[in-house]
Amino acid sequence: MSQRLVFRFGGGTADGGGADKALLGGKGAGLAEMARLGLPVPPGFTISTAVCSHFERQGGQYPAGLDEAVEAGIAVVEGQVGRCFGAAADPLLFSVRSGARASMPGMMDTVLNLGLNLETVEGLARSSGNRRFAFDAYRRFIAMYADVVLELKAASKREQDPFELLLEEAKARRGVSLDTELEAADLETLCLAYLDLVRRRTGAAFPEDPRAQLWGAIGAVFRSWNNPRALEYRRMYHIPADWGTAVNVQAMVFGNLGADCATGVAFTRDPASGERRLFGEFLPDAQGEDVVAGTRTPQPISKVAERPGISLEETMPDTYGQFVDLAARLERHFHDMQDLEFTVERGKLWMLQTRAGKRTGLAAIRIATDMVDEGLIDDRAALRRIEAEAMEHLLAPVFDVAELRMAEAEGRLLATGLPAGPGAATGRVVFHADDAKAWAARGEPVILVRVETSPEDVGGMEVARGILTSRGGMTSHAALVARQRGKPCVVGCAALSVDYESARLTAAGRELAEGDWLSLDGATGRVFVGEMVPRPSEVVETLIGGRGVAEPGSIAARYQRVLAWADAHRRLGVRANADTPEQSLEAVALGAEGIGLTRTEHMFFQDDRIDAMRRMIVAPDAEGRRKSLAPILAMQRSDFAGIFRAMAGRPVTIRTLDPPLHEFLPHEDEAIAALAPSLGMSAEDLGRRIAALGESNPMLGLRGCRLGIIYPEITAMQARAILEAACEVQQEGIAVHPEIMIPLVGHPEELRRQRELVDAEAETVFAEQGLRVPYLVGTMIELPRAALCAAAIAQHAEFFSFGTNDLTQTTMGLSRDDAGGFLQTYIDQGILQQDPFQTLDIDGVGQLLDIGTSRGRSTRPDLKVGICGEHGGDPASIVFAHGVGLDYVSCSPRRLPVARVAAAQAALGADQAD
Amino acid sequence: MSQRLVFRFGGGTADGGGADKALLGGKGAGLAEMARLGLPVPPGFTISTAVCSHFERQGGQYPAGLDEAVEAGIAVVEGQVGRCFGAAADPLLFSVRSGARASMPGMMDTVLNLGLNLETVEGLARSSGNRRFAFDAYRRFIAMYADVVLELKAASKREQDPFELLLEEAKARRGVSLDTELEAADLETLCLAYLDLVRRRTGAAFPEDPRAQLWGAIGAVFRSWNNPRALEYRRMYHIPADWGTAVNVQAMVFGNLGADCATGVAFTRDPASGERRLFGEFLPDAQGEDVVAGTRTPQPISKVAERPGISLEETMPDTYGQFVDLAARLERHFHDMQDLEFTVERGKLWMLQTRAGKRTGLAAIRIATDMVDEGLIDDRAALRRIEAEAMEHLLAPVFDVAELRMAEAEGRLLATGLPAGPGAATGRVVFHADDAKAWAARGEPVILVRVETSPEDVGGMEVARGILTSRGGMTSHAALVARQRGKPCVVGCAALSVDYESARLTAAGRELAEGDWLSLDGATGRVFVGEMVPRPSEVVETLIGGRGVAEPGSIAARYQRVLAWADAHRRLGVRANADTPEQSLEAVALGAEGIGLTRTEHMFFQDDRIDAMRRMIVAPDAEGRRKSLAPILAMQRSDFAGIFRAMAGRPVTIRTLDPPLHEFLPHEDEAIAALAPSLGMSAEDLGRRIAALGESNPMLGLRGCRLGIIYPEITAMQARAILEAACEVQQEGIAVHPEIMIPLVGHPEELRRQRELVDAEAETVFAEQGLRVPYLVGTMIELPRAALCAAAIAQHAEFFSFGTNDLTQTTMGLSRDDAGGFLQTYIDQGILQQDPFQTLDIDGVGQLLDIGTSRGRSTRPDLKVGICGEHGGDPASIVFAHGVGLDYVSCSPRRLPVARVAAAQAALGADQAD
Repeated sequence: MSQRLVFRFGGGTADGGGADKALLGGKGAGLAEMARLGLPVPPGFTISTAVCSHFERQGGQYPAGLDEAVEAGIAVVEGQVGRCFGAAADPLLFSVRSGARASMPGMMDTVLNLGLNLETVEGLARSSGNRRFAFDAYRRFIAMYADVVLELKAASKREQDPFELLLEEAKARRGVSLDTELEAADLETLCLAYLDLVRRRTGAAFPEDPRAQLWGAIGAVFRSWNNPRALEYRRMYHIPADWGTAVNVQAMVFGNLGADCATGVAFTRDPASGERRLFGEFLPDAQGEDVVAGTRTPQPISKVAERPGISLEETMPDTYGQFVDLAARLERHFHDMQDLEFTVERGKLWMLQTRAGKRTGLAAIRIATDMVDEGLIDDRAALRRIEAEAMEHLLAPVFDVAELRMAEAEGRLLATGLPAGPGAATGRVVFHADDAKAWAARGEPVILVRVETSPEDVGGMEVARGILTSRGGMTSHAALVARQRGKPCVVGCAALSVDYESARLTAAGRELAEGDWLSLDGATGRVFVGEMVPRPSEVVETLIGGRGVAEPGSIAARYQRVLAWADAHRRLGVRANADTPEQSLEAVALGAEGIGLTRTEHMFFQDDRIDAMRRMIVAPDAEGRRKSLAPILAMQRSDFAGIFRAMAGRPVTIRTLDPPLHEFLPHEDEAIAALAPSLGMSAEDLGRRIAALGESNPMLGLRGCRLGIIYPEITAMQARAILEAACEVQQEGIAVHPEIMIPLVGHPEELRRQRELVDAEAETVFAEQGLRVPYLVGTMIELPRAALCAAAIAQHAEFFSFGTNDLTQTTMGLSRDDAGGFLQTYIDQGILQQDPFQTLDIDGVGQLLDIGTSRGRSTRPDLKVGICGEHGGDPASIVFAHGVGLDYVSCSPRRLPVARVAAAQAALGADQAD
Repeated sequence: MSQRLVFRFGGGTADGGGADKALLGGKGAGLAEMARLGLPVPPGFTISTAVCSHFERQGGQYPAGLDEAVEAGIAVVEGQVGRCFGAAADPLLFSVRSGARASMPGMMDTVLNLGLNLETVEGLARSSGNRRFAFDAYRRFIAMYADVVLELKAASKREQDPFELLLEEAKARRGVSLDTELEAADLETLCLAYLDLVRRRTGAAFPEDPRAQLWGAIGAVFRSWNNPRALEYRRMYHIPADWGTAVNVQAMVFGNLGADCATGVAFTRDPASGERRLFGEFLPDAQGEDVVAGTRTPQPISKVAERPGISLEETMPDTYGQFVDLAARLERHFHDMQDLEFTVERGKLWMLQTRAGKRTGLAAIRIATDMVDEGLIDDRAALRRIEAEAMEHLLAPVFDVAELRMAEAEGRLLATGLPAGPGAATGRVVFHADDAKAWAARGEPVILVRVETSPEDVGGMEVARGILTSRGGMTSHAALVARQRGKPCVVGCAALSVDYESARLTAAGRELAEGDWLSLDGATGRVFVGEMVPRPSEVVETLIGGRGVAEPGSIAARYQRVLAWADAHRRLGVRANADTPEQSLEAVALGAEGIGLTRTEHMFFQDDRIDAMRRMIVAPDAEGRRKSLAPILAMQRSDFAGIFRAMAGRPVTIRTLDPPLHEFLPHEDEAIAALAPSLGMSAEDLGRRIAALGESNPMLGLRGCRLGIIYPEITAMQARAILEAACEVQQEGIAVHPEIMIPLVGHPEELRRQRELVDAEAETVFAEQGLRVPYLVGTMIELPRAALCAAAIAQHAEFFSFGTNDLTQTTMGLSRDDAGGFLQTYIDQGILQQDPFQTLDIDGVGQLLDIGTSRGRSTRPDLKVGICGEHGGDPASIVFAHGVGLDYVSCSPRRLPVARVAAAQAALGADQAD
């Protein structure tokens, strides 16, 4: 590796900068940029993510030259702080922290106070003048290093941490209850007990050599890139396995040297509401991990009316003033809301981190619109800033204000905590992530209640309707995860007492057991006993509910403004997948420029219609089928007319019958016996007919246009229903643009024949009706062969719509229904980066989109091309669709705002927010 | 269309020639070439196949300029024969015949005697001096034209042809029984009745204008390209729909003007045995159709000892001599055995057709080797000449001579007919093609017995084990079809009386009913009552049976000679798909240069092994699976060792476990209950486990390398079994080259991990055994994604093998198991040209082969690439594989001779024989 492996920062300068996130990780890039800006940053160096990749590929080997580069880095830091790493007198200590390109809070490992041993601890005691502090630091280091590097863990989940156990024993021996009541000598004895524990459990002495400690920690941090928590997190957030983490080695500063010390975290704006105010928490006389871990409920940074005297603003006004200035400067510098970490060591403020702050969807909208108004950013930057996914969070339901008031009046308010995640949730109490998964799998709505959450709980958090914790602040693990997932969450609800053993929680004199109903108001942090029915959010009411024009400055107005910006910048069209007039109206309200997919078969599954369909299927011949199709024709015509009216002149793509016919028939003996008489058949005959329709791989069987080829009367009926409906609506003075889409075409000839049929039926209908309606005929591209033969297929198609669900299934040879068992293993093991049914498999399926589009257009330059699989609403897939030059994406109506913003981001060439 | 539409021939010159088959069709090219050679050919002109394509594409419109070109053609013919088309005196009449690039005997339409009307028939009567002949010609013309052009058919299959009915009535009125007993006046009356019938049935008068007749006939011939018979024939013989037919318009000559007239067909060598002798049949005083239709049993051309006085040689010795000369000349000119049609009009010989003659596989081998010895062609031409498929016909079973003798001794010889198709067949009598299909679908071996066959019977002929007809010669429909399909067939078995009504046949005083057993000896034409067991053919006995060296001149020796030529010319390697040592030995005997696919799962389905497999599948964890795998390891090791020994140093590709695990488990309640105790489970638990393994689309589910990823212990066990077996056999002094093939790879990472596992296991085995064996690791390319990502996959693969079966299924989205219901309809309707599971879908799947190969080699230039799907034994697919640059094809052992010849033909750049 000839590139630079180690990047130094500190003393007003740095090798890297804020733009080097890919190589330095977010933390390393932020530290470098702050150092360049002359901010007070403890000096250090970052080992790049490229080293992580090398380390992984080469089975734990480091690239040549790393040794020397690290030594050089240490020497520079030593020069800057005037202390030496490993020196007996006044030793330099390091923190060793992970830091990936994308923030992965708490997922990977960190080691603090590194460099302490039996000799240097004495030096630290002398230089700090605080022997108790020195041995407390040593104790913490040994425990942390043993956990992270030596992997000395509790033997089981039920067993207590062995170091905690020793600490408890020490306290018991002294008859005290708090750590802080232990004296220096107690801690010294405890450190020896810790070292002995390590020797006994690992069979080797704890490493004394600071450099051995450093390399141990570096390796552990790199390895932690692939620990199970990190893997799960990456999977959830679609973070590629090959990004890797950087390692930040930085001179230690201490927030726990006494009352003139503190450590804290802050956001330059409120990450929940987006309000423009410095929002943060700190702990006096503490190390940073204490705040982030959420184990102590921290104090606010700024003055709070209800809790006077406890804020940083009040306790350290000078430092607070300095911090406010720095925070404002960093926000202006980065043009974005910043997430900051700091430590105050004996009155001196040190900045330990700055990065773009995670925020709720609500906050993202507010901050972006505010910053545009403030002249800080333009609409382009604002759009780049908003995670497209967040647009859907604002469509999440909320509780009605009246219902909330009534619940309070009824005394159902259980407690109030910090509002850490948007929306409203109602569900049944469970206390463990595993239970959450099990209950959710049964279809039960659950609220996961924990003292605090840890990365192990992420799976359970994902399936819960809402999350409630008794401890932890707005920056706790629970809050961060909930916020990003748009999940209702209340944290730091101190009034709550949670007892895992009895599976009960108590608060305000009430007791709830597992399975009891609970409701969370994510907007205010209030927790109510009992079930409450969420209602549509303000944005939904305004945009879809027809409440009318949004109030200026309201979130609905800001939401519309963001969408207007998106529409101004995007090149991709957006359409919706909708099967009914109601869905169509919602789609129009959310910005649909047309319908990209109407699945006609959904109409057939309704109770009153399926009988007609079944009669058609079991008919012995074409004549019988034609007869049974007559009532279906009338139903379909009225469905289509409703959709055309709702879409008011926008194009409507209607797919002809697609699923295998046996999907319409019952398969249980009893149901068959019950159905047979109504079809005029014996149960035996019907059973035989159903069995004959059975297929060993229905996905690859008689479906799609194959049905229309074998039973041309079905296609003819559907074409007639569409075109008669179109004539009817056009006569009402509403423009109509039906686009008839033939599914599962693999051969040009299939489309040519189906199109011939449609065109012939169209001419008949137009002659009967005495008018003409403009219509298009096109096809789904959902088979690899169709993409490969797109040039020939485009001879008969006026449009292509990539059916990326089926195209993914056939290209990868992967049935969505059956992949459940192993797809997760594939993602966990990093064979797949993400679920290919959620985000387009760009390397494989993406090639076929590219090939299909370019070959199709080689025949027909004006070919309209879109996506109508579920990928049409996935931001990463939309960016790809833009790049390939598609005309539009089509998604479910609720995903339209996401699609509009993602399409704009694609046009603006924005990186995905990270 | 700017190219020439009409090609004239006759008078010693022609616009086209023998090389213009694509444009002129086989018949047109042959006529042109004969004209150029100065042979006596009635003048005429050919309307090209390009006109057919235009006609089809443009919905029955002819290209501009055709009218004028046809008129010019007529004028030239008029000039050459000195008569005028449509003239009242001595009118010129035309025959209008189809003629495609590939011979499709009897499939398309023909009209003779065209140009006759109430006026010209009188002219013909005068010029021929034979009023009876003129009206007989007119009668035939009206009936033929009404059938072909006006589509005046019998109302149902059971109804007699209406013209036949009128003829019968006329004979009854006159009290005669033969057509020839009707006099001119009778026929004149009959013609008027025919014309009246046409007027009544079609509502319009029969066209009088000869030019209107001509255009009607031309259109009908073009349309007949797509009649059901032609479609079925094209499907059977893989003739592309876009080739089209030409139309040959030629001056009529008459073989039915009296005793000095005749018409006949001949082959320059025996098409059944390949013997070097003129072989043909003729009818005196007849029109050509009478011979081809097989309705009268014709007489031999050359003298036959047993039937003195009836041959052309004896009845028209001069004409015979002239014909023998011409035949020899044509064979020398075309360097191939010719199929000739001729007419003798008042002693003058006219040649009506020459084309390469269809022949049995046996005849093909004999003729090719003889012609090389005669210096007529070289080995290249000989190879081009032999249809690759024919190589398998010679492996067809025959009856043992001793058994035949005993059957004769027992009086079981029913009758003797003409030996028209190779091999021996035994089966149960059916009388209708539909019955043949129904019985065969039930798994019954059937012999189709007909008076004569027609194109409607082709489907039934295809499924029958053998075909027997009571009428028709060696050139009858039945004979032609059987010969080309390598199907045992006896025709012209005059002693046989077939009664469709009672479903019985009688001969030699015996009566057989539907369902009775019958045996056909295709080699001698003998028909025996009862079942007989066929035995291996001479070629099989010599090559596989180890009978030793073939006698010089014997068919086995000739067969080996052809294979040796093929091996000298082919570039493609040939391997076999074989799962056992026995199959491997057979493969080596038939020329396999290695094993391209050993399916390890086939080994597991054996009774004594499936239990171990089942125990492994239901094991609750990896430890349990490992334990259950131990006995399987021992079984597999011994299987592999057997194969390695059989292959004696040739490479052996072994695929790791591929099918979904539930394929190994029972699915009926009863079977589950019976199995459960032996697995130490309750029936309920086992039922649940089996249900959990069930998949809705198993083809796209947990199978292939996905099994090896989820259950790495299976791959490890199989790698160990392969490599331990390899070590064992290598220690016996036999070279071993295992190639371990990982199936269903879609992502490079899958292969990388499976390969890592295999390599690790290999190192362990080699260390244990104290020796090393060279081995390769590679993958099947059977998913579109794998082909598209081949560059990345090749980083981990030393070879690729295209699994074209699965690749076809996924690329086309077509399940082979489920396609039965509609694939046939697709082929019948011409949407697909052929079954893509039989012949590679070159337009679609072929692209992926090309992409996969070139991208794979872009990463690894020495990547070995082959095909191991069933396409590996299909000649057209082999030609494609050669063109793409694959290293080898792998097929079932019995297909190896086909593959070797096809590979040579590909290398020689030969067109497929047609």
